[in-house]
Amino acid sequence: MLSKNKIKWIRSLEHKKFRKETGCFLAEGNKLVADMLPYFECEFLLSESSWLATQGDIRTKEHVIAEKGDIARASLLRNPQNVLAVFKQPDYILDTEMLKTKLSLVLNGIQDPGNLGTIIRLADWFGIETIICSPDTADIYNPKTMQATMGALARVRTHYLNLPDFFKNMEEAGNSAFPIYGTFLEGENPYQKDLSPTGLIVMGNEGNGISSEIESFITQKIHIPSYPPQSETSESLNVAVATAIICAEFRRQHSENGKAAF
Amino acid sequence: MLSKNKIKWIRSLEHKKFRKETGCFLAEGNKLVADMLPYFECEFLLSESSWLATQGDIRTKEHVIAEKGDIARASLLRNPQNVLAVFKQPDYILDTEMLKTKLSLVLNGIQDPGNLGTIIRLADWFGIETIICSPDTADIYNPKTMQATMGALARVRTHYLNLPDFFKNMEEAGNSAFPIYGTFLEGENPYQKDLSPTGLIVMGNEGNGISSEIESFITQKIHIPSYPPQSETSESLNVAVATAIICAEFRRQHSENGKAAF
Repeated sequence: MLSKNKIKWIRSLEHKKFRKETGCFLAEGNKLVADMLPYFECEFLLSESSWLATQGDIRTKEHVIAEKGDIARASLLRNPQNVLAVFKQPDYILDTEMLKTKLSLVLNGIQDPGNLGTIIRLADWFGIETIICSPDTADIYNPKTMQATMGALARVRTHYLNLPDFFKNMEEAGNSAFPIYGTFLEGENPYQKDLSPTGLIVMGNEGNGISSEIESFITQKIHIPSYPPQSETSESLNVAVATAIICAEFRRQHSENGKAAF
Repeated sequence: MLSKNKIKWIRSLEHKKFRKETGCFLAEGNKLVADMLPYFECEFLLSESSWLATQGDIRTKEHVIAEKGDIARASLLRNPQNVLAVFKQPDYILDTEMLKTKLSLVLNGIQDPGNLGTIIRLADWFGIETIICSPDTADIYNPKTMQATMGALARVRTHYLNLPDFFKNMEEAGNSAFPIYGTFLEGENPYQKDLSPTGLIVMGNEGNGISSEIESFITQKIHIPSYPPQSETSESLNVAVATAIICAEFRRQHSENGKAAF
């Protein structure tokens, strides 16, 4: 039975305030819910009976079978799906030692929830397991972010940290030789550089780029070249698009197949 | 003076039906409007007086100076800006001869207006001047698309065409040797191929990829490799992100600076 209170609770997860109070988040749709179920603690599952028939074992504290119309009343989507789930937000501890051996992303004030979700999805594609977000970056548990991740949060861990403190801690921990890449208009062409297989890639805010406070920590400035080089073009690329092009190039340079043709 | 009817007319441009009837579209915000003004016929401009003071010559059929609150009533944005403009949709004629000498994009059922706008913006970055869209692709004049283009429509021309007819016409015009690239799971690694400096890159629908009807026209199947190659990852990339990575690689292979390090 789906009570009015339950509907209200589910819908309240649209707002960061309630997500913080409850420590929960909402995921909707067959693919997303099925991808998340094995990795996150499920508090509440709402589905049509037909959905259930397609699933194996499901671990959830509570499960309500409902008609399409009931799910639609609880849903935040324009086109409600046949399943939605409320999960517990996990607590991750950042392993700074591990960071030294990996390529990771740092997000400096990404504002659009869709951009953030798209970045998490592509990070997963390129085997990036850790994303450090400044406190003013959009919330990964925003339903719009969640939908854009397409389930990638099962493999990508995010941490919200004060970035200057984080960079200082990294330096003090003897990581001063650790490369920190960032995109700037005056940056070098990444296709002409030997990019490191480990390090941090900092991506900045949609309108303002990397903040001046964070710029001082960047050790390698790069810039994606437009084509043809001198002609008039857009001022910039969408931040998820820029992140994708840069991650693809970091991985190409260090994959056996990537260099074969050159 | 901003009449109620004018507000209604502006807001109606949210809907494709009215955009089609009027042959107009809406653009909002300082950057977008300023980028579009030199290239598109302006029917109506609505701005604060402070905005006007920052501009040079403006060509528009009608110009109304208004207070912020009035602009907000006409705006479709959550955060209304200090200017909006209604432009006439241009009529472009597709030059198929020119297509033979360029790299162009074909969109096969891109549904999300934001993805479409992001693709137009990145096409501009990579010097792609022509985009052919299937009739079921989102409308470029959708306000959400328009906002995501960031003004790139000034340099990128789009054409809505029946794709099978278009491909057949290209073949009949003696372009049978013309490469038509498309992304498929079983495609080749583009980093291991010599990519052509001219041709078409077909990108498919967000959920279903390239349709089977269109697949028969594809001459070169490619697939962006994930990293590391064998590990579990997201099933796919966002379509704008995939378009970006592919366009970046086509351009890298044919830019003087791109190969330097290899």
